[in-house]
Formats: sequence, structure tokens, C-alpha cells
Amino acid sequence: MKNIKSKKAVCVMSGGMDSTLSAYIKKSEGYEIIAVHFNYDQRTQKKELECFHKICNKLDVKEKYILDLDFFKQLGASALTDKSIQVPTSGLEDGVPVTYVPFRNGIFLSMAAAIAEKEGAGVISIGVVEEDSSGYPDCRFDYIKSMQESINLGTKDETNITIDMPLVKLKKSQIVQKALELNVPLELTWSCYQDEDKACGVCDSCRLRLRGFELAGVNDPIPYK
Amino acid sequence: MKNIKSKKAVCVMSGGMDSTLSAYIKKSEGYEIIAVHFNYDQRTQKKELECFHKICNKLDVKEKYILDLDFFKQLGASALTDKSIQVPTSGLEDGVPVTYVPFRNGIFLSMAAAIAEKEGAGVISIGVVEEDSSGYPDCRFDYIKSMQESINLGTKDETNITIDMPLVKLKKSQIVQKALELNVPLELTWSCYQDEDKACGVCDSCRLRLRGFELAGVNDPIPYK
Repeated sequence: MKNIKSKKAVCVMSGGMDSTLSAYIKKSEGYEIIAVHFNYDQRTQKKELECFHKICNKLDVKEKYILDLDFFKQLGASALTDKSIQVPTSGLEDGVPVTYVPFRNGIFLSMAAAIAEKEGAGVISIGVVEEDSSGYPDCRFDYIKSMQESINLGTKDETNITIDMPLVKLKKSQIVQKALELNVPLELTWSCYQDEDKACGVCDSCRLRLRGFELAGVNDPIPYK
Repeated sequence: MKNIKSKKAVCVMSGGMDSTLSAYIKKSEGYEIIAVHFNYDQRTQKKELECFHKICNKLDVKEKYILDLDFFKQLGASALTDKSIQVPTSGLEDGVPVTYVPFRNGIFLSMAAAIAEKEGAGVISIGVVEEDSSGYPDCRFDYIKSMQESINLGTKDETNITIDMPLVKLKKSQIVQKALELNVPLELTWSCYQDEDKACGVCDSCRLRLRGFELAGVNDPIPYK
């Protein structure tokens, strides 16, 4: 019998609900979790990192990589990394919002690929959501599939990596339900774009999360303003 | 008539011969150059950065991005970033050498893509060489083509980026000849993997460079030990 303990998954984990659930799914499938978190001078850097550590403790991860990326601050061009650009709070609109960070998941996945190649992990897990989402282009199914191909072409021939994106086609309410089924500690997750003690409830990310809980018919355990 | 001054190319420039020539090619085609350099705790970080600045002065670049990446030191796994792994000096061998840095060009191109999207540049230039090379998987034509597709799928719909890799199918001797034609300041470029005042002449990178000059029938202007 194959020793499933040797299966390793590199899980990109922000501390939010979606990436946490994605990591829990890999854990439930018998993978050892290598957790990767990015500090990129995002507004919620401190809060996200705290959540990441607490979630990793619950999840019993094998290894943690905490990567400091000055790059996005240097680049700016997003409300999440440039404090002179306000986070929108009046509801989702069509088009790519100002919270979009240029090719963020491309950079995250490239680093995750380097880690996976070094660690001999066959899977990268990412919590992208295409439907009930902010409309970020780097969260689309077609992009992630293409990136998987690029990663396999650009690494050693013996390196074979699958990018797992179990939530990409789910609605937020399905994500909430699935998280409850797997006993994901939703109370430890943080989705809000603002850097405050309580979630704001009105940024795009809060709106999507709250609507997911509402449609799932359950209460969100985190405090809101 | 189209104003060619508005064409911008993001040029990934290490300070080496290949990426310098690639940038000079874009300049000769009328592009404004946005030069991108990575400090990633490689053995030759200081030397490469000096060369990069000198080359940028000659090339009259529009803008410079110097990006500090702690990541590769944290990752290790390469003779270029882990000083406990020796740089091979006994000649090129088959297979991927220990100087390979996992998915380095994937990470570099992803960041270059974010810069290109922000700056409205339609081209990224990279000096990869497939034939006369160390055999790094992230320098292959097929990989770069795939990465171009991934970048266009993972950025805004109005962002359209071509990755230019003018040297990918050239021999090193052709690179030397082309560099001489375009008056590339080869005396300012650094290719050696070792961190010394003079190039070692025996690492894979020096061997490839020296053989290129030899076959082109010209002297390499940089000092060797």
C-alpha cells in the first residue's frame, strides 16, 4: 500500500476563508501540508499573519514558509498595497476593481512552484474563486490551468506539479458549507481588506463573505463593526 | 505615423552579456527601456548590481526597478544562492547543474509582468539561451512561450504582453557577434558565477562565454584570473 504520508502539498495560505478551506481539503486527503504565506505590505499584513499562524497550529502543518515581498509596495497600483488609494466600500461593480494587485497570484504561484520543486511536493493548493469573486484575472480557472503547464515546462523534467484549486467554481455559500463539513476554524480566518480589529462588513471581500454565510443560513463567527 | 517613443519594454537585466544584448536589441528597435534587476543573495549580487547600473547609464534607460528578493536565500537548493554548495568548475555535464535556481525565471517573469501591466508596457525582454547553455529548464523556448500565455490569461483583458527572447536559439558566438554589431559595452558585463574581482574562467558560465568569444574570433574584454 502506498504510504500516503509521503504526499506533500504546498498550500498558499493568506489566513482567509478560501485558502484555509483549500488547505483543509488537502489535509483531509492525507497530504502533509507545507504552508506558504506572503507578507507584501498589504493593509492587513499583521492581521493575516496572526490568522495564518493560528490556523497552521490547528492544521498541524509540516512546515511553514513566511515570505517577505517588498515588491508590491514598490509597485503600488492597488488599494491593498498603496494606502493613498481607498478601499471601495459601496458594493461590487463590474470590471477589475482597484483592489487588484497586478499578477499577484502569478508571483505567488511561481514561488510556490520553486518551493514545491525543492520539497518534492506534487501539489500546490490555491484558494482562488472565479464566480462569487472580485473579478481578479489571476483567479480564473483558465489562467491557473495555463500556469500549471508553464510551471511544468519551466522546472526539471522530473518535477510534476498539479495546481489544485478546489473552490474555483464554487459559490461562497458552498464554500461556507464545505468549511463547516470539514470543521475549518472559520473564527480564525480574516477576509476583510481593512486593517481594523473588527471586519468592516462593507468592503468587497466582507460583502462576498457575509452573503455566503447568509445564503448558507449560518452566522459568521468573526466580529463585525 | 505611430510615435515609437511610446513603446515600452520591461527588460530583465542581470548585468550579464545575454540580457544586456537583449535590452540593446529592444533599444535599437525604438523602445523605451524599463530595466529590472534582481538582488537575490546570489554569490555575485554586488558585482552584478554594479554592472547593471553602469550598463543602464550607457543604455539611457527610462526607469529602473531594483528588486530585493530574500526568497531564494530562504529556499537555498542552488550553488548560486547557498554558499555551502560549490560552484562546479570542471566543465559542463549533462543534466540540470547544481547552479540551477528553482523556477527563477518564472518568478522573475511574473514580477516583470506585474511591472509591465502597471507601466503599460507591451513587451518583456529576457536573455534566455537554450542551445549553448547550462541546460536550465526555465530558459527553454517552450517554457517562455507558455509563460507568455499564462501572463496574458492572468492579467487584465486589456493587458497584452509579448515576451521577447531574441537569443533563445542563438549560439554564444552569434551572441558575441550581435553584441559587437550593436556596440554593446561587453567590458561592463559580468557572467562569472564566482564572486571575485576577475572572472574565474572555469565555471560553466565563464566556459560558455569564453568559447563564444573564441568561436567568434574576438577577445573578451573583461579580465580573467
